[in-house]
Amino acid sequence: MADHPDVDVHALLAHTCPAGATDSITDVDGVEVGQTTVTDGREIHSGVTAVVPRQLDESRKSLPCNVFVGNGHGKLIGATQISELGDLETPIVLTSTLSAFRAADALVTWMLRRPGHEATISLNPVVGECNDGWLSDIRTRPVREEHVLAALDNATGSRPEEGAVGAGTGMRALGFKGGIGTASRAGGDHVVGVLVQTNFSGTLTIRGRAIEPPAAAEQSDHLEAQGNSCMIVVATDAPVDARQLGRMARRAVYAMGRLGADYRHGSGDYAIAFSSAEPTAAPPDPTLDALFTATIEATEAAILHSLLQARTTTGRAGRTAYGLTAADLAASPASAGPRSNPGRTRRGW
Amino acid sequence: MADHPDVDVHALLAHTCPAGATDSITDVDGVEVGQTTVTDGREIHSGVTAVVPRQLDESRKSLPCNVFVGNGHGKLIGATQISELGDLETPIVLTSTLSAFRAADALVTWMLRRPGHEATISLNPVVGECNDGWLSDIRTRPVREEHVLAALDNATGSRPEEGAVGAGTGMRALGFKGGIGTASRAGGDHVVGVLVQTNFSGTLTIRGRAIEPPAAAEQSDHLEAQGNSCMIVVATDAPVDARQLGRMARRAVYAMGRLGADYRHGSGDYAIAFSSAEPTAAPPDPTLDALFTATIEATEAAILHSLLQARTTTGRAGRTAYGLTAADLAASPASAGPRSNPGRTRRGW
Amino acid sequence: MADHPDVDVHALLAHTCPAGATDSITDVDGVEVGQTTVTDGREIHSGVTAVVPRQLDESRKSLPCNVFVGNGHGKLIGATQISELGDLETPIVLTSTLSAFRAADALVTWMLRRPGHEATISLNPVVGECNDGWLSDIRTRPVREEHVLAALDNATGSRPEEGAVGAGTGMRALGFKGGIGTASRAGGDHVVGVLVQTNFSGTLTIRGRAIEPPAAAEQSDHLEAQGNSCMIVVATDAPVDARQLGRMARRAVYAMGRLGADYRHGSGDYAIAFSSAEPTAAPPDPTLDALFTATIEATEAAILHSLLQARTTTGRAGRTAYGLTAADLAASPASAGPRSNPGRTRRGW
Amino acid sequence: MADHPDVDVHALLAHTCPAGATDSITDVDGVEVGQTTVTDGREIHSGVTAVVPRQLDESRKSLPCNVFVGNGHGKLIGATQISELGDLETPIVLTSTLSAFRAADALVTWMLRRPGHEATISLNPVVGECNDGWLSDIRTRPVREEHVLAALDNATGSRPEEGAVGAGTGMRALGFKGGIGTASRAGGDHVVGVLVQTNFSGTLTIRGRAIEPPAAAEQSDHLEAQGNSCMIVVATDAPVDARQLGRMARRAVYAMGRLGADYRHGSGDYAIAFSSAEPTAAPPDPTLDALFTATIEATEAAILHSLLQARTTTGRAGRTAYGLTAADLAASPASAGPRSNPGRTRRGW
Repeated sequence: MADHPDVDVHALLAHTCPAGATDSITDVDGVEVGQTTVTDGREIHSGVTAVVPRQLDESRKSLPCNVFVGNGHGKLIGATQISELGDLETPIVLTSTLSAFRAADALVTWMLRRPGHEATISLNPVVGECNDGWLSDIRTRPVREEHVLAALDNATGSRPEEGAVGAGTGMRALGFKGGIGTASRAGGDHVVGVLVQTNFSGTLTIRGRAIEPPAAAEQSDHLEAQGNSCMIVVATDAPVDARQLGRMARRAVYAMGRLGADYRHGSGDYAIAFSSAEPTAAPPDPTLDALFTATIEATEAAILHSLLQARTTTGRAGRTAYGLTAADLAASPASAGPRSNPGRTRRGW
Repeated sequence: MADHPDVDVHALLAHTCPAGATDSITDVDGVEVGQTTVTDGREIHSGVTAVVPRQLDESRKSLPCNVFVGNGHGKLIGATQISELGDLETPIVLTSTLSAFRAADALVTWMLRRPGHEATISLNPVVGECNDGWLSDIRTRPVREEHVLAALDNATGSRPEEGAVGAGTGMRALGFKGGIGTASRAGGDHVVGVLVQTNFSGTLTIRGRAIEPPAAAEQSDHLEAQGNSCMIVVATDAPVDARQLGRMARRAVYAMGRLGADYRHGSGDYAIAFSSAEPTAAPPDPTLDALFTATIEATEAAILHSLLQARTTTGRAGRTAYGLTAADLAASPASAGPRSNPGRTRRGW
Repeated sequence: MADHPDVDVHALLAHTCPAGATDSITDVDGVEVGQTTVTDGREIHSGVTAVVPRQLDESRKSLPCNVFVGNGHGKLIGATQISELGDLETPIVLTSTLSAFRAADALVTWMLRRPGHEATISLNPVVGECNDGWLSDIRTRPVREEHVLAALDNATGSRPEEGAVGAGTGMRALGFKGGIGTASRAGGDHVVGVLVQTNFSGTLTIRGRAIEPPAAAEQSDHLEAQGNSCMIVVATDAPVDARQLGRMARRAVYAMGRLGADYRHGSGDYAIAFSSAEPTAAPPDPTLDALFTATIEATEAAILHSLLQARTTTGRAGRTAYGLTAADLAASPASAGPRSNPGRTRRGW
Repeated sequence: MADHPDVDVHALLAHTCPAGATDSITDVDGVEVGQTTVTDGREIHSGVTAVVPRQLDESRKSLPCNVFVGNGHGKLIGATQISELGDLETPIVLTSTLSAFRAADALVTWMLRRPGHEATISLNPVVGECNDGWLSDIRTRPVREEHVLAALDNATGSRPEEGAVGAGTGMRALGFKGGIGTASRAGGDHVVGVLVQTNFSGTLTIRGRAIEPPAAAEQSDHLEAQGNSCMIVVATDAPVDARQLGRMARRAVYAMGRLGADYRHGSGDYAIAFSSAEPTAAPPDPTLDALFTATIEATEAAILHSLLQARTTTGRAGRTAYGLTAADLAASPASAGPRSNPGRTRRGW
C-alpha cells in the first residue's frame, strides 16, 4: 500500500479533522470493500469495486441513504428510488460505464441468494460507473457476473487497496492515472469514510501549484473529455437521516474542486451517502457542520490517495496514463508561478 | 385488437381533444413500437415493450427528453442523465423489475451495433419497469437479451397490440388485468402520443362509479401492493424543449388519478416525455395548455385501453387477474352509490 | 357554517377514512387558524388566512416540514429553506399574489415580537398566494401589515370559517366561487388536516358529472386563466420526517385532479406539509399509505368545502363568481352524458 | 475603484479565460447595476444592489433563467417560479435577510409603474439576501422602499462599485470584510458576467496559503456562523436555455470552494443565472464547457474582488470586519506551511 511512504496527505492538505484508524471507508463500523480487477494488461483495464455495509446482512433490509447529482452525465442505477425512499437496499457497486447494467444484474443475482431474500421480488441495486474507454476496450463489456460476485464475496473490513485496482483499473483523473481511493475523517464523535472512483478532468492543484504529468504533451488526445466522471461513496456511523445525508453528499461533490476539478459537461459527478447507524431521532442540522467538514476533507484525501497509489498504466492503443509520484508533489514551489494565459484585458488596478 | 368494439373510450371519458389517426403513440411521426411476450402460460408472464423513435436512426444522436418521478419507488434506468442533459439517446425499453438491468445491457448491445455507433463508448440506455411478480416467477428473470433485441428489431409504426402483451404480460392495475395501452390526442397543431405499462393500485372509477372485478374477494392476496407501478411514455411532435417536456410528464402522472389511482407508497410512477421535432426555439409556455390537456387525456385513454384489451390471465400459484369487460363498464349506474365506509363523524350540515 | 346542511361530502365523495372531530385542520393538535377579510364589497376582495402551529410558541423553534411544487407558477416564499432544512419556523400565511411580500414582511414583524425571539436575526417566513385579480383590484395591494398581524393574533383552535373569507375572499375555482376550505381525515392512529386556498381552473366533476355554473356563458372572460393557483396546507400529528412529509405533500396536489383540476400552465399548485409531533425515529415508509389516503381524501373534501361555503360574489368590473349550491350537486344524474366534443377519429372497436 | 492597483487577480488566480472589457457583469450587453447604501456609520450597515437587465424594459417580458440552490439555508424569493418556467420577469435585487420581503414588495412597486405593465396583475419578483446581522442592527429592517427604488432607478451600464457598498455594506466573508464583487470572463464567443454578495465562512486560501485577518483572534465571536451566505448572479449573452443556465449556476456555487468556502450548514449559497440573448435553438451541451470555465473563473474573481475592495468596517456592538489588503496577499509564501492540526492517525506511508 505504501507507494509513497513520505507523503503526509493530511499535512499536505492542511486538514483539520483527525483521520480514522485506517484512514479508510472501512473505519465506519460494518462497512466492507471487495474488488475484482479485470485486465489483460493490454487492451482491457477494467474491474469492480463493491462497498458492502455488513448491516444489510443482518436484520435490517435497508440503511438511510441519499444521492447528490453534481453533474448528471452518468448512469447511477438506483438513484430515483434512493431519492424517494431515502434508503439503500444493496451494496454499492462501482464499475465501467458500459458494464454497469450487467453489473446491476449480477448484484441482483447476489442479493437473491442472500439469507432472508428467499421471497424477495423487488430490489433496487445501486451501481455507479466511470468511463474507462480511454485505456480499455470498453465496448467489449469485459466485466461479467462472476467478477461482480467475486468482489461482493471477497469484501472485508480491511483497508482496501487503492489506485489502479477494481473499478479504478482504467481510470484517469486530473491528468494522471486515477483509480480507487479512500480516506476517513472524524466529525465530532462520529467518523465519515469516503471511497472514490476518480476519472475526472481538471488540473491537479496542490497548495496553489498546478501539477501536470511530464509527458502529457506527447499524447494528442490527452485531454479528451468524453465519459470522465467521479463516483463518491460516503459512509458514516452518525445517526443522520436521508435528508441530512443528502446534504453531506453535496459537500463531497463540492470537495472535488479543492484539488482542481473543472466540473466539465462530460463529467458524471455523483455522491452517494449512507449511514450505518440504527435509526433514531436525527441530530439537529446545526450539528452537521463537523460532519460536513469531515466529508469534505475525507473526499479530498481519498481523491489524492487514488492518484498517489495508481501506477503508470499503458492500455488501449498504446495510451499511457502517468502515475502521480511523490517527486511530482515535492517539486520546487519556486516553479509555481501563474500559468501564462494572460487575460485579454487586465483589471485596472 | 377489437375486444370491445362497442366501447367508445373517447366519449366515455368525455374527452375534448380529438384522437390521432390511430389513437396510438405511433401517431407521432417516426415513433415505432416493438414487443416480445415471454410466457410459458403458467409460471412465467413477462416480456418487453420498446418505444423506438426512428429519428435516432438517422442523423440525430439524441432527442429532447425529460422525466417526472411521481413516486420514485421504481428503477428507471437512465433518469439522472436525462434530467441533466435533457435528452434521450436510445429507445425506451419497458420490462419486468428484476429483468430491467439485463434489458438495459441488451439495449446497449443493440445500440453498439447500429450504424453510426462504431466508435461509441458511452450510452445512456433508458429502461423502465413494473413488477410482474404476482402473476410471474419474477426471480427467474426470464427476459433475456434475445427478447429485448427482438422487440427492438420488430418495432414498426403500426398501432401496437395492447393488453397482456410485451411488458404488459404480467401486469395488474386498478384491480383488473393491466398491461400495455396506448392512445393519442391532438394538442393544437401537434399530436401527443402515450404508451403506458399499467400495474398500479386503486379502484377503477369511471364516471364516478367504482368498478371492481367480480371475483376479487376470492383471492386473499388480491390487494397485495408490493411492486406495483406505472410507466408512462409520452411522445410529441411539438418542438418543446426538455424543461417543457418535464411539465408535460408531470401531467401524465397527474392523469392517473382520474381513473382511480391511489398513488400508494409502493407504486413507482414515472413519466418519460420526448419530442421528435427538430430543435428550434421553444414555444412560449402559455401555449402549452393544449399539449397539457392532450397529455392528460391521452394518458387516461391509454390506461383504460390497457385494461380493456387485457384478457383474464391465470399465472403463478394459480392467481388470476381478471380482464375488464365492456359489460363491467355498461353495468347499471343505479348501483353507483357511495361506498359504505361512513366517516366517524359526519360534517354537521 | 352550515350553508348546505344537506350535503354529506364524505358520502358524496365515497371517502373511506373517517373525518376528524371537526373535519378541519384544527383537528391536528395545536394547529390554529386566523383570518382577516379585506374587502370594500366592490373593487377589493382580498384577505389573509394564517395557519399557526401553537407548538412554535413554546419550546420548539421549528417543526418538520416539506413542500411539493406541483406547478411552480407561483411565489411560495420560504420554499428553498424548507426543502433544505426540512423545517418550518413560522406560521404559514396565505394571501393575494401581489400582497404576498408585504405579508411576509408583516409575518417577520410578528415573529420578532414573540417571546423567545428577542435576539433572532434570521427567519424564514412562509407565505403562499393565489391571484385574486379577477374579482379584486390586486394592483393596489390592499393587504397591509395590520391585516396580517390580526389574522395571526386572532388564530384559534376552532373550526375556521370557509369560503369567501380571509385569503379566500377573491378566489375562483373550477368555474365557481372558490375560497378557503378545510377538512380532516384519520390515517391509522393519526389525523391529517388540510386547509386549501382554491383558485384553480378545470371543470368541477362530481361522480363523473361535469357541473358548470349556470351563468358562466354570459361572462366573456370567465375562463381567463391568468394567475390561478391552489395552495394546500397539510398538517398531521404523525411523527413523520421531512422526506415523508414531502411524499404526503405530493398526494395533496395529486388529489386536485379528483374534482376536475386541469393543471394548467398558469396554475401555481403547491402543497406544504408539516408535523406537529415531537421528533422521534420516523415510521417505516410502508406504513405511510394510511396517511397518503387520508391526505388525498382530506384535500378533496377541503376543496369541495371551499366551493360549497363560498357565496356568490360580485367584484371588480362587475364580474361575478357563482357560489356552488346544494342544488347544483343534486341535479339529476340523467343529465350526465359525455360532453359533446367528439374525437376526430373514433377508436376502431 | 482602484484600492489595490498592484494586485493582478487574473494572474494571481491563474485564470485561463480573458476578462471582459471592464471585468464586470455589465460587460454583458444590456445588464446594468444600481446600488443604495444604507448606513449610519455605527449600528446600521446595510443596503441594496440591483442587477437590471435592460432587455426587460423593451419588448421582452422575460429572459431565460435558472437557479441552483447550493445550500438552501436562505430566502431566495422567486425561486420556484424560475425553476418551473425557466424565466426571469424582473430585475434581481440583493439585500439584507430580514429586509428581503419589503424589498420584494418595493420591486413590485417599481415594476407596476413600468411602461407596458399597466395591466399586470402577476409578477415574480426575485430577491436574494445575505445576513448582515453581525455588523448591522438587522432587526430594524432599515432597507425601505425608497432605497430599493433608488437602486433600481440609478442602475447604469458602468462598472459597479464593489466592496462595502449596496447590499455588500454589512457583509463578511472568509474571515474578512466582504461585500459586492463583480468580474467577467470570455467563454468562447460569449461573455459571462458575475456579481456576488459575499458573506460566507471558510478560510481565505490563495495559491494554497491560508490567509487570516491579523486581529481575528481578538474577537470572540469572530467565527459566529449564523446567517452567512453567498448570493451569485450570473449573466451571459450566450443563447443558452434555462436548463443550460441551471448547469452554469451550479458551477458558480462549485467555484466558491476555490477560495476556501467551507459550505457550512448556515450558509445560504445560491446562484441565479440568466441570458440576455434572444431565444433561439440552444447550443449543444458539449459546447458549454467554455461557458462553464468562464463561470467558474468569473465567480472566483468576483469573490476576490469583493474582498479586495471592501474597507475595514466597524459596526454594531463595536465589531470590526477587516478589509483584505494587497499586503495580506503579498505576504511571504515562506510562511505557508500546513496548519498545525495533525491527524489522530497519520497515513502509514
